Amino acid sequence: MTDTSAASSAKTYSACLVIIGNEILSGRTQDANLAFLAKALNDIGVQMTEARVIPDIEDTIVAVVNEVRAKHDYVFTTGGIGPTHDDITAQSVAKAFGVPLVLDAEAKRRLEARHTNNLPLNEARLRMAHVPEGATLIDNPISAAPGFQIGNVFVLAGVPAIARAMFDGLGPRLAGGARIETRSITCNLAEGAIAHDLTAIQARWPSLSIGSYPVWRSEAGFAVSLVLRGPEKAELETAGSAVIAMIADHGGIVIEEAWS
Amino acid sequence: MTDTSAASSAKTYSACLVIIGNEILSGRTQDANLAFLAKALNDIGVQMTEARVIPDIEDTIVAVVNEVRAKHDYVFTTGGIGPTHDDITAQSVAKAFGVPLVLDAEAKRRLEARHTNNLPLNEARLRMAHVPEGATLIDNPISAAPGFQIGNVFVLAGVPAIARAMFDGLGPRLAGGARIETRSITCNLAEGAIAHDLTAIQARWPSLSIGSYPVWRSEAGFAVSLVLRGPEKAELETAGSAVIAMIADHGGIVIEEAWS
Repeated sequence: MTDTSAASSAKTYSACLVIIGNEILSGRTQDANLAFLAKALNDIGVQMTEARVIPDIEDTIVAVVNEVRAKHDYVFTTGGIGPTHDDITAQSVAKAFGVPLVLDAEAKRRLEARHTNNLPLNEARLRMAHVPEGATLIDNPISAAPGFQIGNVFVLAGVPAIARAMFDGLGPRLAGGARIETRSITCNLAEGAIAHDLTAIQARWPSLSIGSYPVWRSEAGFAVSLVLRGPEKAELETAGSAVIAMIADHGGIVIEEAWS
Repeated sequence: MTDTSAASSAKTYSACLVIIGNEILSGRTQDANLAFLAKALNDIGVQMTEARVIPDIEDTIVAVVNEVRAKHDYVFTTGGIGPTHDDITAQSVAKAFGVPLVLDAEAKRRLEARHTNNLPLNEARLRMAHVPEGATLIDNPISAAPGFQIGNVFVLAGVPAIARAMFDGLGPRLAGGARIETRSITCNLAEGAIAHDLTAIQARWPSLSIGSYPVWRSEAGFAVSLVLRGPEKAELETAGSAVIAMIADHGGIVIEEAWS
């Protein structure tokens, strides 16, 4: 008898974020969705293993969405779902899936409920009720205009508060595997001093990902954060102890320690 | 007789940024290089038209570097050039170009000049003096360990202060075309109210890129920033006047205006 539950829990889930917007690529706007989504996805056992930042060009959006949806379990897009001419994400995703863009009655109802005489539901706003045929809506509790899901592609707003609210509502639509635990150990040593021994620790725990990040503290001297990541807390406990012993061997002290 | 100067000034230059690092994809670290590089590149007439965020995996770095260096005039990478085991950018770029990673005598000299008895130039630190064969160094005035250029690929540090110092020193190595000028006009109207007329303005000035970005001000009501971008200031003057007249037609007022 096949143990399907074990097979299923061993699967790792990957996601790609596609950030759509000239305003990010021009440097005008600082993206604030990648870090949030990476952490929120990890909390449900999905690893963001790639992100793309692309311009508001239909052919580019179509090509990138088709490339990454074939490679990853989930694709999230942010940006380009407003009412103006430069909001072309919905039509581009429809084209990527080879389906028409259609008016969604429920999306229209939600926009009507929000839009009154002060904000008539004009032709431009009605664009926001159009989704690729076969898509399901993603709730927008902040400004009504919904995102949508088609296949494994989740189309979210670019405004961070709305993107977060949309993501938070997805819940059961996203299956994940094991959450990756993170243990950070920061010490008062230079990165180059511990590099050799850290390599040995990484070799001893090959299933962990161990990163080393110098911390620049112009007044307080050298520091480096050693970041251990893996699905098993117990493994991070023992490997973390080895890191702490190694720091002491080099005459260093642990300045800060955190789990996340 | 061919007017090569006009042909050359009409060329547009594109760049791709490859952000290498698990710490960005896990959400632990917020990237701070994209926005800076996009603006600094535009100042010399190079447009960032794509960015990738990829993990510290050699095969991925090799494949992405080879893909984007064929598509863009310039490729910049950030991250992964320190002394620890997870710093694999140099070896991966060497592999992408099909050349060996070699010890660079000048890079070694710079590291020796910096590293004293307190910070011996051990084997780990010496890794930072290795570059792909045929590469030229990129100065690091902050912490000595250089970046490097090979072909159209410029390998910079991930730490933003160092990445900026490295970029600032590139100067004459980068040829560019026309700078893209930006005019932003923010008004107190809802995006959906002006979407129709804005489409007409975009159609009238097809060579400009006009973006519309809602500004969320929970207390002050609606606002939207209309951002016009193009190489010709005169065109932004006339198109901007049309935008301002359109705002007045809708009973709105301009809250803020800026050139950059």
